[in-house]
Amino acid sequence: MEEMNQSQQHQNSAIKPIIPIRFIVKLGGAAITCKNEFEKINEEALETVSLQLRQAMMSGSSSGKSLGMDWSKRPGISETPSVDEDFRDQPVFDSGSFIVVHGAGSFGHFQASRSGVHKGGLDQPLVKAGFVATRISVTSLNLEIVRALARECIPSVGMSPFSCGWSTRERNIVSADLSMVTKAIDSGFIPVLHGDAVLDASLDCTILSGDVIIRHIAEQLKPEFVVFLTDVSGVYDSPPTEPNAVLLKEIAVREDGSWFVVKPKLEDMNRQVQITVASHDTTGGMVTKISEAASIAKLGIDVYIVRAGTNDSLRALSGEIRGNTPEDWLGTVIRFVK
Amino acid sequence: MEEMNQSQQHQNSAIKPIIPIRFIVKLGGAAITCKNEFEKINEEALETVSLQLRQAMMSGSSSGKSLGMDWSKRPGISETPSVDEDFRDQPVFDSGSFIVVHGAGSFGHFQASRSGVHKGGLDQPLVKAGFVATRISVTSLNLEIVRALARECIPSVGMSPFSCGWSTRERNIVSADLSMVTKAIDSGFIPVLHGDAVLDASLDCTILSGDVIIRHIAEQLKPEFVVFLTDVSGVYDSPPTEPNAVLLKEIAVREDGSWFVVKPKLEDMNRQVQITVASHDTTGGMVTKISEAASIAKLGIDVYIVRAGTNDSLRALSGEIRGNTPEDWLGTVIRFVK
Repeated sequence: MEEMNQSQQHQNSAIKPIIPIRFIVKLGGAAITCKNEFEKINEEALETVSLQLRQAMMSGSSSGKSLGMDWSKRPGISETPSVDEDFRDQPVFDSGSFIVVHGAGSFGHFQASRSGVHKGGLDQPLVKAGFVATRISVTSLNLEIVRALARECIPSVGMSPFSCGWSTRERNIVSADLSMVTKAIDSGFIPVLHGDAVLDASLDCTILSGDVIIRHIAEQLKPEFVVFLTDVSGVYDSPPTEPNAVLLKEIAVREDGSWFVVKPKLEDMNRQVQITVASHDTTGGMVTKISEAASIAKLGIDVYIVRAGTNDSLRALSGEIRGNTPEDWLGTVIRFVK
Repeated sequence: MEEMNQSQQHQNSAIKPIIPIRFIVKLGGAAITCKNEFEKINEEALETVSLQLRQAMMSGSSSGKSLGMDWSKRPGISETPSVDEDFRDQPVFDSGSFIVVHGAGSFGHFQASRSGVHKGGLDQPLVKAGFVATRISVTSLNLEIVRALARECIPSVGMSPFSCGWSTRERNIVSADLSMVTKAIDSGFIPVLHGDAVLDASLDCTILSGDVIIRHIAEQLKPEFVVFLTDVSGVYDSPPTEPNAVLLKEIAVREDGSWFVVKPKLEDMNRQVQITVASHDTTGGMVTKISEAASIAKLGIDVYIVRAGTNDSLRALSGEIRGNTPEDWLGTVIRFVK
């Protein structure tokens, strides 16, 4: 209970950054990794996502060249990086900043599920080893995402929730000091967080998912909107691989957390909508996602779920979907209704 | 000034871990990287250091097999890691825990010096890009060190000073919350920190060296001793490459921070001792190192400077040098005298 109070203090003292946060973007694990290949990044998808984030932030301000901020060795590329000092074209974030949170995809899940880290029990050698192994895997992915963003001239800085002091009790966040996130933003950087293995006051340890992290940051720092980039076009009424699957274009969330489909008008309003996405998110899948998204929407913050690397995702990141959803936009909007 | 006070609060509220900290070990950049090759780890040296750390912590308790905690993909090794569930032989740290801090060596320095991150000025695009590039480079090295330790069954967790909220003013630490370091130790993990690019209240940003980090942790958490693993045998009276260079085996530090050589008894006591080590530490070199080591010794904590991967380093890490320095031990001891 003491820890709870301490956490409340932490949360209440969260200082909003001076630079407004335009959006939080979730890079879904399924969208940026090759889901069927162990610890394999989908380089092409990640590059497109990074480029779109740069485009979204530089709206109209530049068509200039992109000068990278990753000066490290890359496989197959000359060992001495050449650094061009002409950085005038880097994004200035005049329309606000953003925060990146990514999932694990084909990173981390093997290590976590093999050892049962999410169930806790650090006194068991296998769990402790799995905790270490999981963190190695997800921080490897974090580093590669920071590098991909930096190559697009986005001043990204990795922030690992475990080492930033995030912790849980019964899997609920009890401690999450956001002061470093806001300081990084006010210094002109883009924080990149991720789902992580963390300490848990009752279970010893557990897995804190990227979706839960996003909800927490959204509550504390109130971005204008939140974008979930995934590997399908949004939320469907049945598995999207099924021929009759219908994309739910707009979902409304009520004060009590319940939700209903606004668009399209479903023929049989009484049928049980079976929400699924082809997601390899073992930390909760779509049930967690919709519940986290609903919690965010309840704050009055629009949530967009959209396929990564499409014109639709670029429109969502650019804020074009805010207020009114264009008819030709493919994705799911989750909004609060009173 | 307000920030100073806040920092003091941080520092005063540092809670010591329940598990005692036996030692802090600095993995010198020159000892674990190939200094003349850009971003190249000295794999063999790092493996030996990791093995010695494991041996030092398991003194006499096991001759069993070492079961790794790095379950991630490695170049040239089968993609599906095989995980042996028999973890009974992992170190139990019955004699206390330890903290690892590493330097940068051939990582980070190029990025930092190319952009002048240590001089600050984040409003300059080149400095901001260099800040991002430096962090990418040093966190890459951190990840590889965490993995090397994990392969020796040391439950290592990376903790990046910038993302942990460490910051400076005029290059002096003003904020460094150690609560997560102590929590990690009490949960049975080994924190691995590193020299990093950090925010600075007066300069915008600077480089915080691993040596300064060690002094700060030593002050707050009072380990039994501190070991600097380097690529030479210790501190010499002149460059160790010179034929007449004399290894200073024992240095005494006075209350006022001044120091004198105890062993060997130098023939000409009045000659100016020219202290150097073949170190590629651009964050201050030997002047910083001796001054940081003296600050630590002044706390009553012995400091050992020794060549990595030798029998001498193993003896130092095992605590054999404490109290009385064996005649056949090669290295430098720095101790406080009243």
